[in-house]
Amino acid sequence: MIIMKADATKEQIDHVVKEIKKYGLRADVSKGAYKTVIGLVGDERKIPFDHFAVLPGVKEAMRVEIPYKLISREYNKYFEEAGEGMVIPVGNIKIGGDEPVFIAGPCAVETKEQLFKIAEGVKKAGAHILRGGIFKPRSSVHSFQGLGSGSQEDAEEALSWLAEAGRKFEMPVVTEVRGETQVDLVAEYADILQIGTRNMYDQDLLTMVSGKGKPVLFKRHFGASIEEFLSFAEYIAAESNKNIILCERGIVPVGKGKSYTRYTLDLAAVPAIQKETYLPIVVDPSHATGRRDLIFNMSCAAIAAGASGLMIEAHYNPAEALVDGPQSITPEELGEVIGACRRIHQLVASGRNKTKAISDEKS
Amino acid sequence: MIIMKADATKEQIDHVVKEIKKYGLRADVSKGAYKTVIGLVGDERKIPFDHFAVLPGVKEAMRVEIPYKLISREYNKYFEEAGEGMVIPVGNIKIGGDEPVFIAGPCAVETKEQLFKIAEGVKKAGAHILRGGIFKPRSSVHSFQGLGSGSQEDAEEALSWLAEAGRKFEMPVVTEVRGETQVDLVAEYADILQIGTRNMYDQDLLTMVSGKGKPVLFKRHFGASIEEFLSFAEYIAAESNKNIILCERGIVPVGKGKSYTRYTLDLAAVPAIQKETYLPIVVDPSHATGRRDLIFNMSCAAIAAGASGLMIEAHYNPAEALVDGPQSITPEELGEVIGACRRIHQLVASGRNKTKAISDEKS
Amino acid sequence: MIIMKADATKEQIDHVVKEIKKYGLRADVSKGAYKTVIGLVGDERKIPFDHFAVLPGVKEAMRVEIPYKLISREYNKYFEEAGEGMVIPVGNIKIGGDEPVFIAGPCAVETKEQLFKIAEGVKKAGAHILRGGIFKPRSSVHSFQGLGSGSQEDAEEALSWLAEAGRKFEMPVVTEVRGETQVDLVAEYADILQIGTRNMYDQDLLTMVSGKGKPVLFKRHFGASIEEFLSFAEYIAAESNKNIILCERGIVPVGKGKSYTRYTLDLAAVPAIQKETYLPIVVDPSHATGRRDLIFNMSCAAIAAGASGLMIEAHYNPAEALVDGPQSITPEELGEVIGACRRIHQLVASGRNKTKAISDEKS
Amino acid sequence: MIIMKADATKEQIDHVVKEIKKYGLRADVSKGAYKTVIGLVGDERKIPFDHFAVLPGVKEAMRVEIPYKLISREYNKYFEEAGEGMVIPVGNIKIGGDEPVFIAGPCAVETKEQLFKIAEGVKKAGAHILRGGIFKPRSSVHSFQGLGSGSQEDAEEALSWLAEAGRKFEMPVVTEVRGETQVDLVAEYADILQIGTRNMYDQDLLTMVSGKGKPVLFKRHFGASIEEFLSFAEYIAAESNKNIILCERGIVPVGKGKSYTRYTLDLAAVPAIQKETYLPIVVDPSHATGRRDLIFNMSCAAIAAGASGLMIEAHYNPAEALVDGPQSITPEELGEVIGACRRIHQLVASGRNKTKAISDEKS
Repeated sequence: MIIMKADATKEQIDHVVKEIKKYGLRADVSKGAYKTVIGLVGDERKIPFDHFAVLPGVKEAMRVEIPYKLISREYNKYFEEAGEGMVIPVGNIKIGGDEPVFIAGPCAVETKEQLFKIAEGVKKAGAHILRGGIFKPRSSVHSFQGLGSGSQEDAEEALSWLAEAGRKFEMPVVTEVRGETQVDLVAEYADILQIGTRNMYDQDLLTMVSGKGKPVLFKRHFGASIEEFLSFAEYIAAESNKNIILCERGIVPVGKGKSYTRYTLDLAAVPAIQKETYLPIVVDPSHATGRRDLIFNMSCAAIAAGASGLMIEAHYNPAEALVDGPQSITPEELGEVIGACRRIHQLVASGRNKTKAISDEKS
Repeated sequence: MIIMKADATKEQIDHVVKEIKKYGLRADVSKGAYKTVIGLVGDERKIPFDHFAVLPGVKEAMRVEIPYKLISREYNKYFEEAGEGMVIPVGNIKIGGDEPVFIAGPCAVETKEQLFKIAEGVKKAGAHILRGGIFKPRSSVHSFQGLGSGSQEDAEEALSWLAEAGRKFEMPVVTEVRGETQVDLVAEYADILQIGTRNMYDQDLLTMVSGKGKPVLFKRHFGASIEEFLSFAEYIAAESNKNIILCERGIVPVGKGKSYTRYTLDLAAVPAIQKETYLPIVVDPSHATGRRDLIFNMSCAAIAAGASGLMIEAHYNPAEALVDGPQSITPEELGEVIGACRRIHQLVASGRNKTKAISDEKS
Repeated sequence: MIIMKADATKEQIDHVVKEIKKYGLRADVSKGAYKTVIGLVGDERKIPFDHFAVLPGVKEAMRVEIPYKLISREYNKYFEEAGEGMVIPVGNIKIGGDEPVFIAGPCAVETKEQLFKIAEGVKKAGAHILRGGIFKPRSSVHSFQGLGSGSQEDAEEALSWLAEAGRKFEMPVVTEVRGETQVDLVAEYADILQIGTRNMYDQDLLTMVSGKGKPVLFKRHFGASIEEFLSFAEYIAAESNKNIILCERGIVPVGKGKSYTRYTLDLAAVPAIQKETYLPIVVDPSHATGRRDLIFNMSCAAIAAGASGLMIEAHYNPAEALVDGPQSITPEELGEVIGACRRIHQLVASGRNKTKAISDEKS
Repeated sequence: MIIMKADATKEQIDHVVKEIKKYGLRADVSKGAYKTVIGLVGDERKIPFDHFAVLPGVKEAMRVEIPYKLISREYNKYFEEAGEGMVIPVGNIKIGGDEPVFIAGPCAVETKEQLFKIAEGVKKAGAHILRGGIFKPRSSVHSFQGLGSGSQEDAEEALSWLAEAGRKFEMPVVTEVRGETQVDLVAEYADILQIGTRNMYDQDLLTMVSGKGKPVLFKRHFGASIEEFLSFAEYIAAESNKNIILCERGIVPVGKGKSYTRYTLDLAAVPAIQKETYLPIVVDPSHATGRRDLIFNMSCAAIAAGASGLMIEAHYNPAEALVDGPQSITPEELGEVIGACRRIHQLVASGRNKTKAISDEKS
């Protein structure tokens, strides 16, 4: 990481960037209010930091070893822009701000009528952002793959419904991009591009999606450790797009016999991740549990754990949904969830961060 | 399961029990206010239920296939005693009742002074039950194994401190029994006998501990599924002791690389288990996360998820604790945690159970 | 699945395919020597099999529920082409035939000299197929990503080296395709297209790679169950390309503390998978263990377990390799491994399949 | 670890042991042919090694940090008794010697006739040691728990059958001890005491079983890492009983969906463990796979991986076995397995250890 002096000129910054490229690395330039920080993308061991420390305009040049340095709190100490945590604006909504954000909608968009009916319902319930899957990743090629799996025209039509519903009910929209060939198309219609759990490790997709410059909702793979999750978020950040909303959605259950939930919702990952990165993190209790009868409790728990928001599947008739009905709640139930979560958020927001790690206290 | 008629006589009940033994099974007799239910311990496939259905005094005879039938809600439908959930009284404290219960104390009892100082602190902070480890299970034979690992006299002395601290500060006490040879001794001093995570599968210990008739705090093994957890709780229930307090304390992390928490706290297990059994369940965020800086958040989350209480490690000087210092909080911090948890409990208690499984709605 | 009569005409087959499309599914037509089998891609529940059973030329129409039906032994019973197991020809090499196949080469192609030196060495050692990574998937964006991560020209040059080395040393070549934008380019140069562990769930990439019609080496994701692995192989088969070589390469370790191997090599998956599918399966002990000192033992074990071949990383100087040196062996060591594996293969090939499942014996 | 001089007197050794006790640790004295090594049981950080280094008769005093130091190769470098690996004699059988050892018998002893019939069969097939479960650990209290679960007389009778069968067919016998109250009884009849997978963490049982001085067959817990497995074997070694036979028997499967084997057999653990400890390790393919149709392949693979022997469930009529029939093979099939394994053993024994870790080569 290279920290430039407050009065460093554009020429000095460009010179540093050029020097970095000489060593086969790329530069990620973050201009804060008071200073500019240049992150290095690539193998820092090749870099002679002593040489960089004495270049004109450079205040400090230091090695950062963590694999997710660009999104780390360590980096942010110098970058400072994110403060306590980064706030990502999407339309009028602020993700990571003072209020929890609720993302809701159908698992899969089925028809225009279905989408609009649900959109109206979730808006009334208090949702801020509309979700709806068009390119659905599925465990079996023999299952319904979403309207996006048909012709290009079908995909585009479904995407246009989503955008229209977003405009009509005044909610930004988020939908998943499953493959590189869909990126351009989806980016035309969606306000937030989602990377699903199965694609977390797909670094080429991450890079391409990041390049669109729109906020990215990035879901943890169900077999990934927190370190891996953050290390792949770094692929997005490395394209100079730091508008990344992390999403915990459950990891594979451990042990023999029935687990009673589809995945194990790792809520301690929420505060643990917040100690590592300045990025906001939301929770998806719907996919994590796979059970509508656990959504109320686990939504409350996620907000109590400190999540910046929730992503919840809603359907006016869960029993009829083509995909994931058993985990969808109705818009009315969503209203109850949002109400309870807001009250919990107020309650815990003040009490947080009272306990510190022993190591923090010592330092 | 055999359900007796409301007016069944003692002789009729005894006759049924005798008949059950003939088939090589044992009988678990639960006398409720209105009727008596006889659970079968052993392989029900050997039982001719038709034969039992026509014995005098028998109302209904039915096969229940779940491996944890004695503690199941299905069983309780007939037994009825537990109502919405079983309340386990320990001294003046009610576990599983209207208020969350807080169990706190040092990970390991080190000296009388240490124990009393912490007991006084956690009492002041609002704790209801005092915990303190004397027989410590450890991953390495080369680590401190608790005062119980010395002579019989040392173990007894440490146990007597615990009992004395409980009396002095008016808190029932709980401590772990690690092996069968310790059961009699520990049962003399403790109000609640704890089975630790590493002993969950130790069916002989479970049977022996259950036989003492005292409430059992039963921790989930860190590699066990929920089904296994409940199936081993059934070993305790099979000795006709249903005063079982389940405890979720984290399962092994999944994935490569750093996990940032010692275990994965499985909070969705709380409501999922509550749908299966009438037993109360508490959460131990200290062992689950291994990090004092996450205790506040995860305690709030556990209560929001519906836990009946918490088990938290406390120490006046976490940095000095012989065992698990990095996860202990101070009594002052405990006070903050308890305060926040109480407010969250009130808030969510009313809103619960709003969403039901699709299957429930259909039936 | 629709089984056509032996004398079904092309028109009759086309008519069935057309009817299938009417119901929103796709048809996978497999013409065997004696009959034609039409697999259905999509949700079979929509199909009125009674209607199809009476169409001209149809012998039988039946529902197959397994999510990997096109690659299942069940399917092959009718299809019959694969016999005991499918043999996939690549140049003069037969994968899945009577002899185990050895795929070897550097983890990452670094220079032309490095590649040719290793290619010469592994050929001498007895390897049949040359491997070499050009697009390297990495856990960190800050690590070396392979020569393919540079310009299009760099990638193409490295690919041309690989093809040239293959021609010079008479070995077909295999290399990984990491993203959809690389598929066309890699397919020009490689004889076998590899899908790496991190991309197993990337269904769009699978579909696109399959469409090239070349054999696909398909690696199990390190967090995937066998069922998931086969269900995603089905995505490849669903594009009518059944030249799929499965590859077991280790799954994430379980439990706290050191695991001593990078992944857990799941060798029982080899015979378990062979009972489910007619596709050949090879084993990669290099990535699974991450330790060169375990390669000899685990290669022997893999062949003893029934693997159709091995994929092994080799380097003339493992300590110098840019990627995965600690798991590479020298060409000389590879020769020892191949020799031992061949002898074990002969020894066990005759003794196999002596024990059958109880269910098989009953039927 | 304290290494005494070759000519150290008994008094000097006793003095060192006394000094160690002063610091609250225990001493494990190993007298080799040429020197005596004193291992420390407990927290070595309390020990002033400088002080010990200058005690009379002491050659060297050094800290060893690994949690399983008493069974480590590091320790054995000084102790030397075990040489390349420790050989444990049981009757005429040598476990860990030049020939693989085959342990076979029924999962559960059901009747005397059943046991004798199987014992005769497995002896004829080439088995060396007879296994038979009397105290069966089960996942459900409602399943058959073995003949040991009845009266003390029943348990003793079944044990006497086992001992008698062992004498009659000239095979040492091994059976499981599930709880501390069974240790004395089982030790009277069995030649080897088995600790089952569910009791691996039961340190009090380990200590008590070790104290009997008989060889211990120690199974890895299905959720334990290799480090944990060895750290708990250390509890046995710490009672000065190093006749420990480790047993790999599968760990919990990873991932969603069907796994097709009961557990994941971790065969790479075999050579990985052999690099860490001088103790022999055997493999149990029966419990690992739960499938009789995989036993042949996985037995061959285990021996190829370097296992010192196998533990296999056999029954003359697997379909009739009360416990684990689907994973039992017949004595005839066992004969085939043993024959193939012997040939593989000869084949690989010579080729082993050809590849070394890079770190070894550098040192």
